[in-house]
Amino acid sequence: MNKYTKTELVANRQSLMRTFIKPEDDASRLVLIKYMEQISFGLHEFLRKHVGITEQVSLKDLSGRFKNTLISKNPEKKLTDVITEIVEDIAPHAVNVASPYFIGHMTSAIPFFMVHLKTVVAALNQNVVKIETSKVVSILEKQVLAKIHRLVYRRSSDFYDRYVQNIRTTLGCFVEDGTLANITALWVARNSLLAPKNGFTGVEQEGIQAAYSAYNINRCVVIVSRLGHYSIKKAGGLLGIGNQNIIAVDVDADNRMDLDCLKKTIRKIKHDGTGIMAVVGIAGTTETGAIDPLPQIGAICAENRIYFHVDAAWGGPVLMSEKYSHLLEGIDSADSVTIDGHKQFYMPMSCGMVFFKDPSIMDAVKYHANYVNRFGSVDLGIKSLAGSREASSLILDSALKIMGSQGYALLIEHGIETNRRFAEEIERRDNFELITRPELNILTYRICPSDIKRRLAEADSEQICIINKELNKTNRAVQRRQRAAGKSFVSRTKLRTGNNPGKEIVVFRCVIMNPMTDIKILNEILDEQEEIYFSLSPLLNIQHLTQNG
Amino acid sequence: MNKYTKTELVANRQSLMRTFIKPEDDASRLVLIKYMEQISFGLHEFLRKHVGITEQVSLKDLSGRFKNTLISKNPEKKLTDVITEIVEDIAPHAVNVASPYFIGHMTSAIPFFMVHLKTVVAALNQNVVKIETSKVVSILEKQVLAKIHRLVYRRSSDFYDRYVQNIRTTLGCFVEDGTLANITALWVARNSLLAPKNGFTGVEQEGIQAAYSAYNINRCVVIVSRLGHYSIKKAGGLLGIGNQNIIAVDVDADNRMDLDCLKKTIRKIKHDGTGIMAVVGIAGTTETGAIDPLPQIGAICAENRIYFHVDAAWGGPVLMSEKYSHLLEGIDSADSVTIDGHKQFYMPMSCGMVFFKDPSIMDAVKYHANYVNRFGSVDLGIKSLAGSREASSLILDSALKIMGSQGYALLIEHGIETNRRFAEEIERRDNFELITRPELNILTYRICPSDIKRRLAEADSEQICIINKELNKTNRAVQRRQRAAGKSFVSRTKLRTGNNPGKEIVVFRCVIMNPMTDIKILNEILDEQEEIYFSLSPLLNIQHLTQNG
Repeated sequence: MNKYTKTELVANRQSLMRTFIKPEDDASRLVLIKYMEQISFGLHEFLRKHVGITEQVSLKDLSGRFKNTLISKNPEKKLTDVITEIVEDIAPHAVNVASPYFIGHMTSAIPFFMVHLKTVVAALNQNVVKIETSKVVSILEKQVLAKIHRLVYRRSSDFYDRYVQNIRTTLGCFVEDGTLANITALWVARNSLLAPKNGFTGVEQEGIQAAYSAYNINRCVVIVSRLGHYSIKKAGGLLGIGNQNIIAVDVDADNRMDLDCLKKTIRKIKHDGTGIMAVVGIAGTTETGAIDPLPQIGAICAENRIYFHVDAAWGGPVLMSEKYSHLLEGIDSADSVTIDGHKQFYMPMSCGMVFFKDPSIMDAVKYHANYVNRFGSVDLGIKSLAGSREASSLILDSALKIMGSQGYALLIEHGIETNRRFAEEIERRDNFELITRPELNILTYRICPSDIKRRLAEADSEQICIINKELNKTNRAVQRRQRAAGKSFVSRTKLRTGNNPGKEIVVFRCVIMNPMTDIKILNEILDEQEEIYFSLSPLLNIQHLTQNG
Repeated sequence: MNKYTKTELVANRQSLMRTFIKPEDDASRLVLIKYMEQISFGLHEFLRKHVGITEQVSLKDLSGRFKNTLISKNPEKKLTDVITEIVEDIAPHAVNVASPYFIGHMTSAIPFFMVHLKTVVAALNQNVVKIETSKVVSILEKQVLAKIHRLVYRRSSDFYDRYVQNIRTTLGCFVEDGTLANITALWVARNSLLAPKNGFTGVEQEGIQAAYSAYNINRCVVIVSRLGHYSIKKAGGLLGIGNQNIIAVDVDADNRMDLDCLKKTIRKIKHDGTGIMAVVGIAGTTETGAIDPLPQIGAICAENRIYFHVDAAWGGPVLMSEKYSHLLEGIDSADSVTIDGHKQFYMPMSCGMVFFKDPSIMDAVKYHANYVNRFGSVDLGIKSLAGSREASSLILDSALKIMGSQGYALLIEHGIETNRRFAEEIERRDNFELITRPELNILTYRICPSDIKRRLAEADSEQICIINKELNKTNRAVQRRQRAAGKSFVSRTKLRTGNNPGKEIVVFRCVIMNPMTDIKILNEILDEQEEIYFSLSPLLNIQHLTQNG
């Protein structure tokens, strides 16, 4: 494929300088345009030809091809060859997340202009850690943060006039992803609970040990439903309170936090020398898309003076739909809210955000350095987990202008409504069982033929366990076979039915966010699963269970 | 500027779908090409016309223009108008970090192909948190990590054959930036020190309080020179040991960690119930570019069984220069090493990396979830601070192929050698004083006319303080004036001369990493500073000091 001989590729100053020089004549402009066409259209052509998800090659075979660990001294390839290689050799074995048949994860097609905007950000190469390497882009970031803050908290115009460009306060923060957003929120929550007082200079400065002693407690906990994202546990480990102190409370039949359990947990904990760092509500659980009862959780937190964080990494942008924003009612009672840009804002990988009700609360995590982030400057890096950061705000700001909230609303509404039709279709089919009814655009289901459904209805709990075990094997096998075939992709997870830890069942998990995914495609996916199931069933015990039922 | 009337811009399903559709006919191809030309050449044209750094507009004026906090319901602008606006209204007020006159921070021009590679990554939109949304890209990431690991640790071919694609181990991790790389390393260090034992399940699970009790200690510290990056302090706060427990040891006359101080600190600490989580060596301090004596620190750590981390965020890529890699001798004795991709690998914002000598040590920070990151899978998100991440590895891998190590070496050597010539020029000029002699491509200096130099040489410490105070005002004023003028940019910081905290002086800080920055440009920058100094000096007391000297 490389049509240049190795000897032609030598690193020297002259060829090096060329890579830094701006295209100043028509010839070099043409070369650059050729590259760009190759990137955009090479990839587009490829993705169009391959409506499927990925080539059917095993990971083991693939990994055998990526074992060379030496960096070549001289250049190995020209840009054009590198791009050709990516289009021809990498892309077919990557995952076509843009396919409407890819409904397994929270990654999807993005509007084409997002790629252009990412290019703009890369070309400007601003570093928003400090004003000296970003200037107006830092100011723009504050404005975008205020726009999303206003979407979430709906404070007064006066409030936003006062804070949008206030250099001493911050309404939120861009981070790498939802995990880091949740970590940032809980970092602030920890430091707010264990704040400086009476000679104690605060947990950030003195550490957990000294803080517990100053506050006369022996542990700190975070309370979240057992469907909480695993980043909450990670935050507990990272922040030094211990991940075993992330208390998982049960959920109700609709997978929402059980309020009685929450109240009971708080009551119990309050009397045993435990500090409650935060209660985390979820607006769109990762596995089922359920939304916790935010107004009630907010009220319980207010009553008990507990920090309330909402993980709306997934569901946040639903606020842009006038039709469905009521689902997130109560989100404005949260002290902080996580929203991911690369999820339902359809931004490219990756962009997380966290917002704070109190514009001064991030003071609890501020850091300075002499050469950067000076006191009293606009430097955004003063209150931020990361240091150097790219200007993701420029992408979001532009996208909001191009789409309008109504454009986003159409996407959100398409997902929710298509998902409802999908649920109906699953229920209509004999071989499937709908496990979680869609609240947003996520649902779970499994293969469970009607005769087995009947058996399950009559079985005792021991028999249910045996049958579910076989169903789990079946569903796992079908998902793997479908994934390997590469025509479509549905993810799988394990869910508990009710709050009984003994009864985990394997389910297919679908996320409908690609506007090209319609009910016709969803039916094809169900057809394929049925076919795989029939082709596998002689090998599986489930058939045996049925025959002896 | 917007030639479309508002009423034309309505969010409807049809126009929305267009933004997701791949260009399938020649007409839509042409539209896309037009956009891309506009982005690339619009920005290039702009940057070419404006050799300067930024337009001379105050932050206050700018922020007044970015105060609208409402998201418009219907689209406000078309993509083409958004791009025009960025080129015409945003770019002039951003910072032209690509200018060879921008020598103030660790952000610089990047080769033009980096922008193309970022575009490729955005178009593929893989999420490397899991194999199901990245497949071959996760495998490629493991290979690239092994390449850089090998550059740093130079283990045997057998070692790399065994680990490059091993799904149970990891040689490192891509993170957002150097701060998160240092945090990840110290997270691993904390969990290694306070590991599970005798019924204690480890600090990650049980928290700091329980860990201290299990290990019978009352605090944990990290030792770093007082020139350590502020992310080390941030890590101390975040990880729950308290940022006051980041112990700053003194440096020698060359700004390298003082080994006697290190030994004394360790000796003293070892007997007072303190756990030493890590010693951090720096390979390229942010402010002066100095490299700590890594082989000696490594030996001291080995002798005392202390975790050794090297923050080579800046200096790491120097390993690619055969001529200067010896400066980083001893880096392979570190348990972990931070290297930034967006610094001397010249990648776009932002990309950090951390490498571990022991391929299993990241087991101390692993997290799973049912729907993702399954046990025994290749999922990279199992051992990673962040969750969703873009495929930065694809950019670095391609860049290594296009540049070769020799291409990078030329950049590194240009920086180091140009910086040496710059130091000579500063010393040659009467009005300047070289403060830190360059070891890599960073130096600091200040305005200090020769008559004042003479006065300083004869002054007692009280007089020195008075004179330095005036010099500080002068240098601060000159840097600000130069920055505001927008023709060139040099940063400033405060440094202690010797290890006396009372004697901080304000210095200019220069980072020579742009291959277009040559001695001619550096002389122009010095000329400009002299001019500003002369224009300001009637206002400044320094003149007064001289006259009465």
